[in-house]
Amino acid sequence: MREIAQAKLPLYLKVARQIEGQIRKGALRVGDRVPSIRGLKRQQGVSVSTVLQAYFWLENQGWIEPRPQSGFYVRTPFEELVPEPEFQSSRSGPTEIGVCDLLNEVVLSIGDPAKTPLGAASACKALYPYQKLNRIIHQVMRDDPTHSSRYDFTVGMATLRRQIARRSITYGCNFSPNELVITCGGMEALNLGLRAVGRPGDVIAIESPTYFAVLQIIDSLGMKAIEIPTHPRHGMDLDALESAIRKHRVRACLSITNGHNPLGFILDDGYKQNLVSLLSKLKVPLIEDDIYGDITFNGVRPKTAKAFDTEGLVLLCSSFSKVLAPGFRVGWIHPGRFLETVTRLKFINTIASPSLPQVAIADFIQCGGYDRYLRGLRMTLAKQVQVYSHAVVKYFPEGTKISRPAGGYFLWVELPERIDAVKLYRAALSKNISIVPGVIFSASGRFRNYIRISCGYPWSDSMERAIMTLGRLCA
Amino acid sequence: MREIAQAKLPLYLKVARQIEGQIRKGALRVGDRVPSIRGLKRQQGVSVSTVLQAYFWLENQGWIEPRPQSGFYVRTPFEELVPEPEFQSSRSGPTEIGVCDLLNEVVLSIGDPAKTPLGAASACKALYPYQKLNRIIHQVMRDDPTHSSRYDFTVGMATLRRQIARRSITYGCNFSPNELVITCGGMEALNLGLRAVGRPGDVIAIESPTYFAVLQIIDSLGMKAIEIPTHPRHGMDLDALESAIRKHRVRACLSITNGHNPLGFILDDGYKQNLVSLLSKLKVPLIEDDIYGDITFNGVRPKTAKAFDTEGLVLLCSSFSKVLAPGFRVGWIHPGRFLETVTRLKFINTIASPSLPQVAIADFIQCGGYDRYLRGLRMTLAKQVQVYSHAVVKYFPEGTKISRPAGGYFLWVELPERIDAVKLYRAALSKNISIVPGVIFSASGRFRNYIRISCGYPWSDSMERAIMTLGRLCA
Repeated sequence: MREIAQAKLPLYLKVARQIEGQIRKGALRVGDRVPSIRGLKRQQGVSVSTVLQAYFWLENQGWIEPRPQSGFYVRTPFEELVPEPEFQSSRSGPTEIGVCDLLNEVVLSIGDPAKTPLGAASACKALYPYQKLNRIIHQVMRDDPTHSSRYDFTVGMATLRRQIARRSITYGCNFSPNELVITCGGMEALNLGLRAVGRPGDVIAIESPTYFAVLQIIDSLGMKAIEIPTHPRHGMDLDALESAIRKHRVRACLSITNGHNPLGFILDDGYKQNLVSLLSKLKVPLIEDDIYGDITFNGVRPKTAKAFDTEGLVLLCSSFSKVLAPGFRVGWIHPGRFLETVTRLKFINTIASPSLPQVAIADFIQCGGYDRYLRGLRMTLAKQVQVYSHAVVKYFPEGTKISRPAGGYFLWVELPERIDAVKLYRAALSKNISIVPGVIFSASGRFRNYIRISCGYPWSDSMERAIMTLGRLCA
Repeated sequence: MREIAQAKLPLYLKVARQIEGQIRKGALRVGDRVPSIRGLKRQQGVSVSTVLQAYFWLENQGWIEPRPQSGFYVRTPFEELVPEPEFQSSRSGPTEIGVCDLLNEVVLSIGDPAKTPLGAASACKALYPYQKLNRIIHQVMRDDPTHSSRYDFTVGMATLRRQIARRSITYGCNFSPNELVITCGGMEALNLGLRAVGRPGDVIAIESPTYFAVLQIIDSLGMKAIEIPTHPRHGMDLDALESAIRKHRVRACLSITNGHNPLGFILDDGYKQNLVSLLSKLKVPLIEDDIYGDITFNGVRPKTAKAFDTEGLVLLCSSFSKVLAPGFRVGWIHPGRFLETVTRLKFINTIASPSLPQVAIADFIQCGGYDRYLRGLRMTLAKQVQVYSHAVVKYFPEGTKISRPAGGYFLWVELPERIDAVKLYRAALSKNISIVPGVIFSASGRFRNYIRISCGYPWSDSMERAIMTLGRLCA
């Protein structure tokens, strides 16, 4: 498996991984100058631009830093600055979530453009390729002027489903367009998935922490959640998951497998395979949320758990909102054996999705623009996450721990235990800074001293001031 | 109340109503020539175009017919051709709807472009103002190029909410933009409304027959339906509604008040007032579906039941899908006192609606284009419904009864009792004609000898052949 993955690596990454290996083994130490660009070019027989790409990646990953007019040097490894949040193994039973007033308050503050957007759930507008998309919309309106005058098929435009099917090979699947249903964003996909497999009163196993809206969907459908202890880098404890399923008649499991929100992990292929075979053995469907799967930092599109699904029990949910166009509201679901039910639910939830954004996205993928654009976005986000991480380390009090995101644009920050993150959230709001308090990522009030920080906006003086202010408010 | 409505009548309608009055009173009889255009112009002191509009309206309503080079003559009243479907007063208890396989089959056939669209749920593409909307989209992209790069507010674009609030005066309301939530079509509005007021296991009172997707929403939410006997022209039997509520602890009532699907009625103001005060007295919320409210045939925008709501118990759902742009998927809800709950549900169902279609519609309303366009659409649909009605009378077997729609674009046809409409539906499909069998408009299998026929497409030879074929299949 790993060898196959290696074989697909772009050239610059192979070069970068060699340097990374030398640093890890101690052949290159903190403060050492790495080979010059020309030197490495000669040594490896690659182009200057490949070397530059490799060094840029190493810089993004925190291994090296540029010094003016002097080249690149090995830096203090980021890993050694502050530890990651700890794995908490405490288990609990199914929980009714109840209406969380705090959530509504937080959602409003996240969307408030007057606040410094450290709570934002999207990247900065300027990072999205809106000009290209607008040009495509012009073209679509010329080619298909009556796009607004008809209901599209409930399952969505064939042209977009074809493009998604084509790209599915990159994450280990090989979909047919006829197996897909286009949705109004990833949120509708999760809704339809949960409604297809569960009924009111059912128990859904979730990661702890998990994306707060997942909790609210479960609650709104009259279901209960059981929180499975989740490692900040390696996902749910599968033993705990198995015993929860055996004990509580869990109806489905929901996992954010790539670029987890808020933890940022990418589960590795072996884990995904184990997860799917455990659930298949117990006949429990998996609702897989992969909406950050296209923005992972190491340049390789990770597999989905769906890639290991032989029984149609995985309902893969994804979306273009996080990576391309939040305002288009285009997501999709591959519901496996639940296709018919999901199609019916889509019809009675929103009938169909708007046509124009679907065709625009399909055209953007087809012309190759999407994959080109993704390469740049990944690099940008990886870099931003690094810079934000360093700022948190610099300005937050001792005892702070931060996640090591491998994708997405969130940092999960564990504050010293004495700090109440809800109070911090309110104090930050009064300074016109939005963040998300950790407690809303739990069905049972955990993570009281955690916050989620968004790194979706380019680093700037005002961002630095905001992080500094947060650090002061902690103290 | 009625006087106020009269005062708002356009001039041509006042003239037309006078002629209608003369026909009703017998002053003008079948075969009589109505006054010449010049004569009526002099007599009433109005313009030729006003007289023409009046005569066009009377022709649409079936009162007069033109004869070549001779003027307009009073025709055999349409009302006398065949009777309306009968009011069935049989009552029943709450029903679990169960998954209706037939529904999925029908939905697929409705959307199949290869079929003659007598089952269609929208008007013909050519009737919608897509060119104007495309021009507006061009402009919106120039003014706001980053429309796709941000999540819009969960409640929707302020500019559209303002226009809806402004127009709400035409149906007896006076909304604030802050009381509205934009949805992905009317279907999401109904979903959010039902989810806001009810929980699984609750009983919802509905008209019988009612729009089939309403039954499916109720089912998908684990709720039950109680069918209230409904008069084809005057709506639910309010005594039956009251006793059902007292007996079965009904959680909410759902009514399509204007341009009912499939019955086509517009409930009168007095009825709406009685309905709202009955429900207020019993503290039962009303989910009001008004998606056909803007396409009613007599030129006057009917009031909504919401206009009589003093307690915030009416959740008014509407949409631009039926009247303007099915492919935009823009609807809205005024949830009354349930605003906060509906906003939260909207967030966790689809987060927000796409921005571009919202702004396009807002601009179209603001520039006056929407109201101008509606005037033409109403006339066209009224005429089409008349022509289709006459064709059904001509080709269908004796004993057929048809509705007298006052809005929308559906005919509700009661066939002789021996005819199984599901068989007719299947036989029609085999002749490449789509219709909708009546049984899917009932939770309990009523209306086995009814069909719904769509009049949304312009009359043509192929439509006439299709109606003729249906008539033959009945025999």
